[in-house]
Amino acid sequence: MGMWIGRNRKARVTYGFDEIALVPGRVTINPNEVDITFRLPRKEAQPLEFKIPILASAMDGVVDVGFAVAMNKLGGLAVLNLEGVQTRYKNPQEVLQKVVDATKSEITALLQRIYQEPIQQDLIAARVRQIKDAGVIAAVSSIPQRAAEFGRIAQEAGADVFVVQSTVSTVRHISSEYKSLDLEKFCREMRIPVIVGNTVGYDVTLEIMECGPAAVLVGVGPGAACTSRGVLGLGVPQVTATVDCAAARDAYFKKTSRYVPIVTDGGMSRGGDVCKALACGADAVMVGSAFAKAHEAPGRGYHWGMATPHANLPRGTRIKVGSTGSLKQILFGPAEVDDGSQNLVGAITTCMGNVGAHNIPEFQQTEIIIAPSIRTEGKLFQTVQNVGMGTS
Amino acid sequence: MGMWIGRNRKARVTYGFDEIALVPGRVTINPNEVDITFRLPRKEAQPLEFKIPILASAMDGVVDVGFAVAMNKLGGLAVLNLEGVQTRYKNPQEVLQKVVDATKSEITALLQRIYQEPIQQDLIAARVRQIKDAGVIAAVSSIPQRAAEFGRIAQEAGADVFVVQSTVSTVRHISSEYKSLDLEKFCREMRIPVIVGNTVGYDVTLEIMECGPAAVLVGVGPGAACTSRGVLGLGVPQVTATVDCAAARDAYFKKTSRYVPIVTDGGMSRGGDVCKALACGADAVMVGSAFAKAHEAPGRGYHWGMATPHANLPRGTRIKVGSTGSLKQILFGPAEVDDGSQNLVGAITTCMGNVGAHNIPEFQQTEIIIAPSIRTEGKLFQTVQNVGMGTS
Amino acid sequence: MGMWIGRNRKARVTYGFDEIALVPGRVTINPNEVDITFRLPRKEAQPLEFKIPILASAMDGVVDVGFAVAMNKLGGLAVLNLEGVQTRYKNPQEVLQKVVDATKSEITALLQRIYQEPIQQDLIAARVRQIKDAGVIAAVSSIPQRAAEFGRIAQEAGADVFVVQSTVSTVRHISSEYKSLDLEKFCREMRIPVIVGNTVGYDVTLEIMECGPAAVLVGVGPGAACTSRGVLGLGVPQVTATVDCAAARDAYFKKTSRYVPIVTDGGMSRGGDVCKALACGADAVMVGSAFAKAHEAPGRGYHWGMATPHANLPRGTRIKVGSTGSLKQILFGPAEVDDGSQNLVGAITTCMGNVGAHNIPEFQQTEIIIAPSIRTEGKLFQTVQNVGMGTS
Amino acid sequence: MGMWIGRNRKARVTYGFDEIALVPGRVTINPNEVDITFRLPRKEAQPLEFKIPILASAMDGVVDVGFAVAMNKLGGLAVLNLEGVQTRYKNPQEVLQKVVDATKSEITALLQRIYQEPIQQDLIAARVRQIKDAGVIAAVSSIPQRAAEFGRIAQEAGADVFVVQSTVSTVRHISSEYKSLDLEKFCREMRIPVIVGNTVGYDVTLEIMECGPAAVLVGVGPGAACTSRGVLGLGVPQVTATVDCAAARDAYFKKTSRYVPIVTDGGMSRGGDVCKALACGADAVMVGSAFAKAHEAPGRGYHWGMATPHANLPRGTRIKVGSTGSLKQILFGPAEVDDGSQNLVGAITTCMGNVGAHNIPEFQQTEIIIAPSIRTEGKLFQTVQNVGMGTS
Repeated sequence: MGMWIGRNRKARVTYGFDEIALVPGRVTINPNEVDITFRLPRKEAQPLEFKIPILASAMDGVVDVGFAVAMNKLGGLAVLNLEGVQTRYKNPQEVLQKVVDATKSEITALLQRIYQEPIQQDLIAARVRQIKDAGVIAAVSSIPQRAAEFGRIAQEAGADVFVVQSTVSTVRHISSEYKSLDLEKFCREMRIPVIVGNTVGYDVTLEIMECGPAAVLVGVGPGAACTSRGVLGLGVPQVTATVDCAAARDAYFKKTSRYVPIVTDGGMSRGGDVCKALACGADAVMVGSAFAKAHEAPGRGYHWGMATPHANLPRGTRIKVGSTGSLKQILFGPAEVDDGSQNLVGAITTCMGNVGAHNIPEFQQTEIIIAPSIRTEGKLFQTVQNVGMGTS
Repeated sequence: MGMWIGRNRKARVTYGFDEIALVPGRVTINPNEVDITFRLPRKEAQPLEFKIPILASAMDGVVDVGFAVAMNKLGGLAVLNLEGVQTRYKNPQEVLQKVVDATKSEITALLQRIYQEPIQQDLIAARVRQIKDAGVIAAVSSIPQRAAEFGRIAQEAGADVFVVQSTVSTVRHISSEYKSLDLEKFCREMRIPVIVGNTVGYDVTLEIMECGPAAVLVGVGPGAACTSRGVLGLGVPQVTATVDCAAARDAYFKKTSRYVPIVTDGGMSRGGDVCKALACGADAVMVGSAFAKAHEAPGRGYHWGMATPHANLPRGTRIKVGSTGSLKQILFGPAEVDDGSQNLVGAITTCMGNVGAHNIPEFQQTEIIIAPSIRTEGKLFQTVQNVGMGTS
Repeated sequence: MGMWIGRNRKARVTYGFDEIALVPGRVTINPNEVDITFRLPRKEAQPLEFKIPILASAMDGVVDVGFAVAMNKLGGLAVLNLEGVQTRYKNPQEVLQKVVDATKSEITALLQRIYQEPIQQDLIAARVRQIKDAGVIAAVSSIPQRAAEFGRIAQEAGADVFVVQSTVSTVRHISSEYKSLDLEKFCREMRIPVIVGNTVGYDVTLEIMECGPAAVLVGVGPGAACTSRGVLGLGVPQVTATVDCAAARDAYFKKTSRYVPIVTDGGMSRGGDVCKALACGADAVMVGSAFAKAHEAPGRGYHWGMATPHANLPRGTRIKVGSTGSLKQILFGPAEVDDGSQNLVGAITTCMGNVGAHNIPEFQQTEIIIAPSIRTEGKLFQTVQNVGMGTS
Repeated sequence: MGMWIGRNRKARVTYGFDEIALVPGRVTINPNEVDITFRLPRKEAQPLEFKIPILASAMDGVVDVGFAVAMNKLGGLAVLNLEGVQTRYKNPQEVLQKVVDATKSEITALLQRIYQEPIQQDLIAARVRQIKDAGVIAAVSSIPQRAAEFGRIAQEAGADVFVVQSTVSTVRHISSEYKSLDLEKFCREMRIPVIVGNTVGYDVTLEIMECGPAAVLVGVGPGAACTSRGVLGLGVPQVTATVDCAAARDAYFKKTSRYVPIVTDGGMSRGGDVCKALACGADAVMVGSAFAKAHEAPGRGYHWGMATPHANLPRGTRIKVGSTGSLKQILFGPAEVDDGSQNLVGAITTCMGNVGAHNIPEFQQTEIIIAPSIRTEGKLFQTVQNVGMGTS
């Protein structure tokens, strides 16, 4: 396993979504009759059940209170970022408008400035309560350094799910300047499910699972608005990352009988990508840019990475995704576009029908092929005319 | 066989037309002296013989009654789609004109609306008779769910060939909402030859052949106007798909002495692609976009996927192909363009001459190489100047 | 050797110039002190010696009488095509001007018309004599079907080299319509050296060498103005083609002690490509588009494939290459451009110096690596700004 | 090891920066707590210590006296080219302005003319002294043929480091026209550290190290303004080149206990590339185009290869890089851009934190994967909108 990249040194070959395809099945199924439920384990309680295996990313252009409520009502789960504009500004509309209005050359400096405003702790609880007031499940997130504090506040305010998220999460973080999060302790002490990420790799995933999270987020750097891979050279393409972490989940389940779902996070903007992630072994997917296109999204057609405002080393960018339809359309259609960015759920069930999978666990067994030509074979006209699969 | 794409999971490497090339032979033959006849088996009758191994796709921008007549007179076979505008509208010219006139942003919704008009059963018989009245072979198609009904009507109206076609066909389709087509029973009860598709894969092809079709269509998603591969992530590149299904055909023939031809369908817009499909093992090819360019084509220079009008999850798009020559020119030349989209038959015979193949069975043994650079080597000027192989 | 492209079928992986690079040597040499002589064997006479291992293609945009004289005086060899405008028109300037003036949409039909004018046999002898009158070596070419006749005329007129050239040459060509060339007999009966091509593949090259040619041209379809690979799907990338034919040459030499040089023909527009061809085993290269850029070239900045005028199936195109410098500059510099298209000889000698090769036979042993990234690594600015390696 | 590229001939597969990625670690570290010191060995003295492992290239658009001073004050080392405009012109501002003002078509000829002006020996000493007068380390360079003479002058003028640099350096250079540099003798006789390059390959690097240099420069042709790879076909992608030379360094250290650092030179314009070079085994990197963007750079937003002015065979080009920030910003941020071209040091330390490396030797052990999709996965919007990783 691995190719020589030079004397005495080998490297694994890894794969991304554009390099693979799914193989139609020997049996096909009516898409209306497949089961795509996603279950998030809880301590001493029935798992939280979601009708659709799709989460919305904890990004400021995607999720605010209104979006979170709409998403959960439609069967999915949206995560509100406790370190974004929603907790720094009582009325974030104004700063969001500035982000929308900024030119390309102004945007990095503007975001750096906007995110220097301190987080207001009372807004954390307020946002959670606003979501809960609508009668839906509330999920919020922070980075590891603030998880102990923000997790407690959020839980007390009624949050149902807490997400601890950083570019690269490990169980062992070394620092003499600050105290690292004791992940095992945090998961143990929180009453609500804790989702931890992001990670790639079999070993790290196993170590994280041993700390007791409810689920693990998979993916370093694939996000549409993320530039970590260019700035740092770091990352693992999502196909290999998902397959590796799925293997860790299965090994952990075999050993402990505890099933910790993995959620592939980032790099999927179209139905085909979402299908591939699930077929690679994901239990659910977390999607950003596809939802930034919703009329309900706070970014009004724009989307930006949460590492973009970094004061010293921004690792994200603002992209324009357009405001193309309602969240309901993006999830369930009817699609008004032909490029796969609407009716994500229809894409999943249709694909499952075509590969003959009754449910997600069966979908995870789909035969995968390495097929880079799948993107271009016969598609010259679409590419040149910027339609269909050539849309950008 | 296969590469590791992650822990515990392997994937086959598959190939498309742009990744291979054909190797010149040790013997060469005068192109005028090669035999390219395609034979479609019939029950208790001599096979239908076609002078050229090329079928026209059952798509509304390609085949109407007039086109079907012209194509068969030139030696090939065109399939009229019984679920398109020809059977929904008594005078389809008007709606076709609307498709041509629509803007990019209107087209998906327009197609959805046009194809909501119900199919008129009397038009099915009428279209078949119109083709028969011209004294040529009539071939028509439907999806599996309607095959039993439409097949009977078409056969009674005098159709010579019936095509059962869906994105992914299998022998076993599971649904509690509707009754699946019993493919074996259908093939047994129809008196005229039944062509079944689309499929990829050795096992599925074998299972379909055991149901008794006259031929099998190979290909999931490569069509120029199809977006299934983007929307669903599904498909197998045509080189591997054709080689696999050819192996199934040969195995089935060895076992039963019945030769079921395979027809590679989609992804071939130029002569070189058609040659590659045959060299990969196809007995004939089915072509859409190349014929949509004919003056005789109903699409008037436009072409769209038959899954595009899907109400909820459109999986196609409309592309502009232009109206570049007569059908005769596209098939037999003289080519007025230098990009390989005219004189498809001349390309086949010239290529067969250069590889030293007297007939299609010998052509199917041509040495193939993996040669992605074949598209670009020395072709920088053509690409930049949008001429020859760089034409789009 | 080979990869599975589908069930029961394997294909070799082959390589083109853009996929490889040459490795610097352990010893380096002053470029002024390397020997690049090319020797073309003659019957019962000393070989013809050329100071530089570069031939100019038998194409109408490249070689006329004046160019042939200039090229040979500078140490190389230009081949005049006996089936082009030079032998169809007493004063070809006029038709050449029409080619230059034609628009993109007119060009194919125009070329078809121009090349329908019959060849005038007296012009064959006249062109040969015009070249000889300048005191240089005269090389002319025809396709196999006309080689017996044109070869005799050319030889009698004083030609020094005859080139028999077709898209794909084999020893065994099967036709009942016309008599194939008996290559062995032709080579035996001609007193002057016969160069035969084009070919790819070890076995075919061996068979051709057994017929007694002075040299063999290697390459099917890589030419800058050729579209055979798109139209027919046929060809082998030049790196693999050259390596294979070099192996045949070496095997033939081992068996017979007769050294038949191979000349890689097509696909090389810059010094780096020429260097790679020689390092792959070529004894010389034949170049078209690079010379079409010379002020001396009859194409006045345009270049077109000799299969472009085919009445029924054109397999070439006209490209604009520009008129960028004198032939002397293109061969020896001083280069006024930075993209490798001028000073081809300087590129060869500098490269040989850097890999430590004293002469062509040593250069043919250079270590080659597969290095597709060599074209792009660090070159983003050049590509975007259309300068240096990004020039088109 | 190696793939067949044709009959009887194999070639290694080699890799460039865009084809690999770094894998996040099992442990992560606070980036503020990693050590990135670079040490350049000296004879009978403590090594020169640099706070950051980054050198600025000996190119006229990058380094003049002022830049060298600024760079060293910030912790790195800039090399002033003794064969550029700084030693040919007493007041180089004027000619630099001409380079900036020239059009694309004028630039090659202009550079050829500018660099024909003879080098003034008194300016060599003058430039060294100007740097030393600022109280910083002075590093200067020449080609091998002039190293003996210029090295002596520079050392006497107070230079601290001498760089002997040519496109391809070997220990054995063969010429009867001029006397080659005796590298072993030169390194032995110079009192100050000698850095030698450029090289690729295990064996050549070992031979060079045996001559006693303080460090070795790795890389043939990857530079942003270099066209050697196109003009000559020569080069090894930087990943493989660095891994190979690192293996030579380690083998040489094992044998002699003398550690000769290797410096990867060229092809890195963003933080991610620099990180990858170090992870591949480099002890430091040498960067050109990234620094040409500094306000302090003499090229005023332009950058050109030092082989561009070659009178006969220019092997470089002028590119526009823009003047985007101060040198301090480029090295340490705060980054005002999101593409990875600013805060190179922050990128290194952040990446080291994420892979869990405390220092460069640990960073050199990072797990590398082959991951070509890392550049594009999820980045369609960035590419199309020319932002973030799609910036050019």
